[in-house]
Amino acid sequence: MNAGTPPSPGTPPALVTARLDLREHIVIVGGGFGGLTAASALRHLPVRVTLIDRRNYHLFQPLLYQVATAGLSPADIASPIRAILRRQRNITVLLGKVTGIDIADKAVLIDERRVAFDQLVIATGARHGYFNHEEWEKCAPGLKKIDDATEIRGRILLAFERAESTNDESERQRLLSFVIVGGGPTGVEMAGAIAELARVALSIDFRNIDPKAARVILVESGSRVLAHFPETLSAVAKRALEKLGVEVRLGARVSRCDPHGVIIANERIEAHTIIWAAGVVASPAAKWLDAEKDPAGRVLVGADLTLPGHPDIFVIGDTALAKGVGGKPLPGIAPVAKQQGAYAARVIGARVQGKPAPKPFRYRHLGTMATIGRRSAVADFGKLRLSGFIAWLLWGLVHVYFLVGFRNRIAVTMGWLWAYVTFGRGARLITGYDN
Amino acid sequence: MNAGTPPSPGTPPALVTARLDLREHIVIVGGGFGGLTAASALRHLPVRVTLIDRRNYHLFQPLLYQVATAGLSPADIASPIRAILRRQRNITVLLGKVTGIDIADKAVLIDERRVAFDQLVIATGARHGYFNHEEWEKCAPGLKKIDDATEIRGRILLAFERAESTNDESERQRLLSFVIVGGGPTGVEMAGAIAELARVALSIDFRNIDPKAARVILVESGSRVLAHFPETLSAVAKRALEKLGVEVRLGARVSRCDPHGVIIANERIEAHTIIWAAGVVASPAAKWLDAEKDPAGRVLVGADLTLPGHPDIFVIGDTALAKGVGGKPLPGIAPVAKQQGAYAARVIGARVQGKPAPKPFRYRHLGTMATIGRRSAVADFGKLRLSGFIAWLLWGLVHVYFLVGFRNRIAVTMGWLWAYVTFGRGARLITGYDN
Repeated sequence: MNAGTPPSPGTPPALVTARLDLREHIVIVGGGFGGLTAASALRHLPVRVTLIDRRNYHLFQPLLYQVATAGLSPADIASPIRAILRRQRNITVLLGKVTGIDIADKAVLIDERRVAFDQLVIATGARHGYFNHEEWEKCAPGLKKIDDATEIRGRILLAFERAESTNDESERQRLLSFVIVGGGPTGVEMAGAIAELARVALSIDFRNIDPKAARVILVESGSRVLAHFPETLSAVAKRALEKLGVEVRLGARVSRCDPHGVIIANERIEAHTIIWAAGVVASPAAKWLDAEKDPAGRVLVGADLTLPGHPDIFVIGDTALAKGVGGKPLPGIAPVAKQQGAYAARVIGARVQGKPAPKPFRYRHLGTMATIGRRSAVADFGKLRLSGFIAWLLWGLVHVYFLVGFRNRIAVTMGWLWAYVTFGRGARLITGYDN
Repeated sequence: MNAGTPPSPGTPPALVTARLDLREHIVIVGGGFGGLTAASALRHLPVRVTLIDRRNYHLFQPLLYQVATAGLSPADIASPIRAILRRQRNITVLLGKVTGIDIADKAVLIDERRVAFDQLVIATGARHGYFNHEEWEKCAPGLKKIDDATEIRGRILLAFERAESTNDESERQRLLSFVIVGGGPTGVEMAGAIAELARVALSIDFRNIDPKAARVILVESGSRVLAHFPETLSAVAKRALEKLGVEVRLGARVSRCDPHGVIIANERIEAHTIIWAAGVVASPAAKWLDAEKDPAGRVLVGADLTLPGHPDIFVIGDTALAKGVGGKPLPGIAPVAKQQGAYAARVIGARVQGKPAPKPFRYRHLGTMATIGRRSAVADFGKLRLSGFIAWLLWGLVHVYFLVGFRNRIAVTMGWLWAYVTFGRGARLITGYDN
């Protein structure tokens, strides 16, 4: 089963280990899109690889909002990293929470433990940021982890349940008000999914309330939703949201947020459920590395994605601030992370094989998509721009295609077919509360 | 959409409501097998029904151990009660935690709120009991709720992860030791599933440990596992467990339980994961009713399943102590609860329709089954006793058939097919930890 030359008869095991240890040790921190792509691209190289993640699974984040809105189960969009890489014999997967990096001694710290590296790839991602209002996290959770998604799912479903049992009309209106802060893809997709949940999936399940009376408000501080898309598609997305009953508030900022509601542009809106999709901050990698960072915490990297002055340390994906064409920072999306993971592996491969270094990293933009509920999406592939049913079908195909693992592809496809045919949502569970 | 006579034109809405309110109000507490069957059996009767549950979903408990061992997702075996009963127009579903019952005033208390009833069905189930060692719950969690299952799943998977990263051989052995307390169906099925997880599903995913080295110990204080089955089938089940590598300790009791291990029959076993499947206690219904109860907290009921002296209050399922043939208490299993739920509805129906009362409740035993891993199960249908592959196939068919909801049937069938073909487990997620 071992990739190396078989030991000659009689070789004591200790020697075998020692010989194997002569291979360079590549440590990858983070099993997201970037880290996993890098790990996988290193599979045929004569290196030892250790992938460290604080969670035991790779999460397909683009569909996390569907877990939060009861359409899919967590296991449908997550796969154990260990299982994904089980056949790659040069890799060891380690569950652990990195607490620091010793640059001088070239070691990753997991509490007391030290994992020495020859070359390091940091791909620790980002989480939601509150623009110096971290106290808002409690009333306006963001959506980055599975536990975030099941928590938000519980909040949304509890809101309808409590509205059903209250006799207080203003409390009922508050319970049925949902505010989503941030008009990027996550915010747009959440708003659409909550509106659909209320208008379609739950519509006949309640007796005392009309779930269709739910109010879904999407707040965006910029002048349009989906700011990274062409303006025409932003307009299409806004219209599609409004058709679903979502109130889209552009050019509006949240100035206060508490457990009972928000203040948006001087107007107080009483709301039980507030969801944060407005900003992200990078993982603490910049602190570990004592490196230069931008306000969102992203580490400034060079043209080969390494830390300036430390050619053995790569920083990729949402953790890195890499520049694209015209010096514009690359967006924190999966394709960037994957291309950067593959690039880092290529540079490492060239080094261990003594080949010339590859050309600087260049991001190839393949397109962007976002869905706004049933049979509606927008897709931008540069010259080709799509919206409506065709874009929605394509969105579904692309997402299933990029899901990791055959089982998840089947599970997600079945979940979607079910939702499409029955107009229902299959995972309407309120869990994690002491009930 | 309303079941009653349509109001004549011009009738003010208030009067319609008043007229509908003249129907008897049946309150059911608990949306498990008993409560749901009762609710559903009341659908054509001229009564108003309110079903109260502290959770928003009905849980198919017989498959909960498969969630705990990463084979199925929670949503595969749970359906929103509201969605199950959505088309039954005479029912209202209420999410709420019952805190007491006012017998004199005929009202169910949900904190400050009072829900008045004409007739009441209590079907609040049971949870795991520790024989006056409630402090064991923390080190030896039981398996009754979805959150129990995801917590146990996390513990089991974390044990393998930590074993992979430790360098301490005795700690590794402790991490890979799993003790299951209780040799009933849940204990047997858990032990088999964990052994299979270690020996098959995880076997090639680790580098530093051999998951097959895991030690699974099933402790049963009686003289055989599956005590409710015929002795021959108990022996078959024991052999099947041993073939999977499970150590079966009969006639052994746990005398101590702490976060590092257990003492079984004077022997200390260091173990990271201890799972409690030994005893149940009924819900606090006996306390609410100030009623006579057995040591397991079950309420003593009469031949018509009502509380002695209170013909309007039924207690059914795991919460009730009903006597079967020869005065033997009926077991706490789904078929008993379902038959009792249907019976209570029949008595209520006879009363509201002025018909004679049905004959005393009599449990019809249809059979019992338990599975012990892949292609192995035991089934007892009185004269017909099956084991091995045929019993296993039958076990699967019966469980899918009794699952509530078409979507869950598909999801479970697909999950099983996947596991059967690939030898894998599809839901290996460690969630709920702060990671």
